[in-house]
Amino acid sequence: MFIRNTWYVAAWSHEVEGDKLFSRTIINTPVMLYRKESGEVIALADRCCHRGAPLSHGRREGDCVRCMYHGLKFDSQGTCVEAPAQERIPPHAKVRQFPVVEQHRWIWIWMGEPEQADPSAIPDTHWVDDPQWRSLPGYIHYDVNYLLICDNLLDFSHLPYVHPTTLGGGEDYATVRPKVERVKDGVRITRWTLNTEPPPFVKAVRDWPGKVDRWNIYDFTIPAILRMDSGMAPVGTGAPEGTRVDAAEFHGCQALTPETEGSTHYFFAHPHNFSLDKPEVTRSIHQSVVDAFDEDREMISAQHRNLVLDPGFKMIPFGVDAALSQFRWAVNQRLEEECAAATQKSETAT
Amino acid sequence: MFIRNTWYVAAWSHEVEGDKLFSRTIINTPVMLYRKESGEVIALADRCCHRGAPLSHGRREGDCVRCMYHGLKFDSQGTCVEAPAQERIPPHAKVRQFPVVEQHRWIWIWMGEPEQADPSAIPDTHWVDDPQWRSLPGYIHYDVNYLLICDNLLDFSHLPYVHPTTLGGGEDYATVRPKVERVKDGVRITRWTLNTEPPPFVKAVRDWPGKVDRWNIYDFTIPAILRMDSGMAPVGTGAPEGTRVDAAEFHGCQALTPETEGSTHYFFAHPHNFSLDKPEVTRSIHQSVVDAFDEDREMISAQHRNLVLDPGFKMIPFGVDAALSQFRWAVNQRLEEECAAATQKSETAT
Amino acid sequence: MFIRNTWYVAAWSHEVEGDKLFSRTIINTPVMLYRKESGEVIALADRCCHRGAPLSHGRREGDCVRCMYHGLKFDSQGTCVEAPAQERIPPHAKVRQFPVVEQHRWIWIWMGEPEQADPSAIPDTHWVDDPQWRSLPGYIHYDVNYLLICDNLLDFSHLPYVHPTTLGGGEDYATVRPKVERVKDGVRITRWTLNTEPPPFVKAVRDWPGKVDRWNIYDFTIPAILRMDSGMAPVGTGAPEGTRVDAAEFHGCQALTPETEGSTHYFFAHPHNFSLDKPEVTRSIHQSVVDAFDEDREMISAQHRNLVLDPGFKMIPFGVDAALSQFRWAVNQRLEEECAAATQKSETAT
Repeated sequence: MFIRNTWYVAAWSHEVEGDKLFSRTIINTPVMLYRKESGEVIALADRCCHRGAPLSHGRREGDCVRCMYHGLKFDSQGTCVEAPAQERIPPHAKVRQFPVVEQHRWIWIWMGEPEQADPSAIPDTHWVDDPQWRSLPGYIHYDVNYLLICDNLLDFSHLPYVHPTTLGGGEDYATVRPKVERVKDGVRITRWTLNTEPPPFVKAVRDWPGKVDRWNIYDFTIPAILRMDSGMAPVGTGAPEGTRVDAAEFHGCQALTPETEGSTHYFFAHPHNFSLDKPEVTRSIHQSVVDAFDEDREMISAQHRNLVLDPGFKMIPFGVDAALSQFRWAVNQRLEEECAAATQKSETAT
Repeated sequence: MFIRNTWYVAAWSHEVEGDKLFSRTIINTPVMLYRKESGEVIALADRCCHRGAPLSHGRREGDCVRCMYHGLKFDSQGTCVEAPAQERIPPHAKVRQFPVVEQHRWIWIWMGEPEQADPSAIPDTHWVDDPQWRSLPGYIHYDVNYLLICDNLLDFSHLPYVHPTTLGGGEDYATVRPKVERVKDGVRITRWTLNTEPPPFVKAVRDWPGKVDRWNIYDFTIPAILRMDSGMAPVGTGAPEGTRVDAAEFHGCQALTPETEGSTHYFFAHPHNFSLDKPEVTRSIHQSVVDAFDEDREMISAQHRNLVLDPGFKMIPFGVDAALSQFRWAVNQRLEEECAAATQKSETAT
Repeated sequence: MFIRNTWYVAAWSHEVEGDKLFSRTIINTPVMLYRKESGEVIALADRCCHRGAPLSHGRREGDCVRCMYHGLKFDSQGTCVEAPAQERIPPHAKVRQFPVVEQHRWIWIWMGEPEQADPSAIPDTHWVDDPQWRSLPGYIHYDVNYLLICDNLLDFSHLPYVHPTTLGGGEDYATVRPKVERVKDGVRITRWTLNTEPPPFVKAVRDWPGKVDRWNIYDFTIPAILRMDSGMAPVGTGAPEGTRVDAAEFHGCQALTPETEGSTHYFFAHPHNFSLDKPEVTRSIHQSVVDAFDEDREMISAQHRNLVLDPGFKMIPFGVDAALSQFRWAVNQRLEEECAAATQKSETAT
């Protein structure tokens, strides 16, 4: 079961280009994305209303798409406008169109009630295409339910253990208890590790003589969007007090989009605001993040296999679970609300 | 659920040769096929009655087969005639024998009540080994339920879209509404496309100066047998009126045999009656058909994946669905009849 | 469903070596095996009590293991002794420890009630490391339920059919009806084949002028342990009367350990007490057994596929099934007893 009335990241802008009909399954629904001649992105159900063939195997005709199974043609609203062997087209011959918004290199999609789709509710991720910041686009695919990956992102105490040679620094990092606050649709996590070893991925691009104060301050919100102010500065330069001198600053943006109950799309970028003229720095940071996310995937996939063997396994909560417990609670609240609204709607209809 | 009291194609004649014990699963049942020393084809359940081992892993002993797990020997009726460690063999120690008929290079099998197996009910496919016709034997395997492939074969409006470089010609082909008639156990479809571009697979072997009149006239009958008079002749030579001058004629024979609920065997040949002395023409036509059937399989497999994602998907019927709707209705009728007969039989037995 | 209160073979001694954290799933439960600095083998559930991550992906710290997901540290009893971000550890933060006994190169594990784990109940397999015997360690993996492999081992009439070039001799071997007796937790099978051809695996290492008397005398006991006195001696030298002159003697030890309902670990050795100074003889015998067990696996896997196609298939019993029927009955008895005990225990607790 997935939240429907929310904005999911469907794709990187560059994945949907030219005349291409791009297909991606989102919360169990096959979606076709393409650009009109104007460049505007369109999202239609990637399933012909006639016999269920994928429209993404079809052919662009102007702003329309022709299904290449039996030749039905659909306009960019999803309305069937031509059927080769018949004049009159059934009025309900439509495929669903989904609201989309392209913003800061991400294409956001709304899988729920279209009238509730409010673009102003899309989280701000401007760092991904802000000229003052640099990053590369990241995407990986998981064969696990997205909530296991949320759990991972909501507890950074795993950094020194899962990522000792990439994102993790000294193990003192894990002994800090972060501050966890409720924010609208999620949680805000604030973690300061003072006087600590900088992590390998930053050591590779910055040269400080000694230890650093390191911060990770991030919101993790429904459906599964992480936006993080993170970085480090030499000890004693005042970072904890708000002064960022000789600092390495990042503004990570990450989005999990469930594909099915058992698989997940993971979009990410890790913008930095230093060495803007050095593409090798951007590449180095990006590669470290990619390597680290592969490490996460290996651990989470192994955890998943264990849970499959015993679906009745009762986890024992620890203090580090505060944020993930709150987030899972928020998700369940939303699912219950959507379920109640759907029930009410169908009762009203009767 | 599958129709049982019908003739299925089990194999091409050449698949069952020499001393070989050939195994193929048909409507969920493993079947072993082999030839007696006389050349007669025998079909037995490919599952020893003792512990379920496949007899096709066994050894020929004259017209008998010995199971190579524990040494039980079965005659060509399926009766156990020897058990190494015991004198008396249980009288019910038998594997099921299935009626088979070898005809025109196909081995037909009857999976239902043996007393109802009437060889005269086998559809005529003599074109496959008629000396006036030439073809090559085709077989492909699908990982979808056979009814999705029936749907495909019952609506040729897909030809110009799925097969633009093989079987399809101009898209005007899809604008024609074929005549659909009920025949015993299925439907007859008659499609004439006048003054149209010949399709690439014929252009490759025939050289006409201009356009053609093209026909596809076929019966599609239970369980899933297609027999088709098809071809084309230059416009104005009288083909629609029944005169075939300078024509390219074909007599396609195709048979779908369900393997399991989710997989299907597909046997086919596409005999032509011109250029009989040019094997390269036969090879060219055959290769085009093979390529086209790969195109179908790609589309139908993608359709299947879409349907699996949402088993509740309601298809919207179009006019082109007339034949497939009638055929599915005929299949369901037969399934209900067989179900009712089985119920009655078990009640009589009580 | 598996018997729990019994000793299973978890691993060969050499599979658990050095600092390694070795993982193997046993009756659906992931288990981590490692050696303390003293060399003692420890078995813990391979699933952190916190979020279910595998401890075998963790790090040895002395005799403890640290989970490399969030840094929890467990001692060799399975008790969580450190959690990076908190002082007080929940008292129920433990992973299960399983009783283990290392004996004659096998590590035995008890998956049931620890208080019932009696090491004296472990079957004697001393031939595997007795200096008067030689063998090599064998392991193969099956993708079938372990009972199908038990069936195979409980009826050696399959030897000449499945293993004609390895373990099997003349087909007269299958005509003998062995003596089957009940023993504690299983059956004893005694099979004498007199005046028979020696099997290929012995011909390769022993040169007798004529035929032999061959014996296979083995206990097959719960959970699935085979221990066998087998061999052959020249005809007329008195083997059936108890004199073993110029004999080739073996003492096979085999253990099946279910991994899941659909997969099985198979541990085996085939010690011989002749040519002790010729490692090539040991290698030759071992290779024949490995080849033969691959032959079994091919047959049993094919049998398994047949049974999956028709779960309602009724096998027809033959005389050779006496031992396997008795063993399956013994297994069911034990499962029922364990089920009744569990019910009683939960009622007492209420």
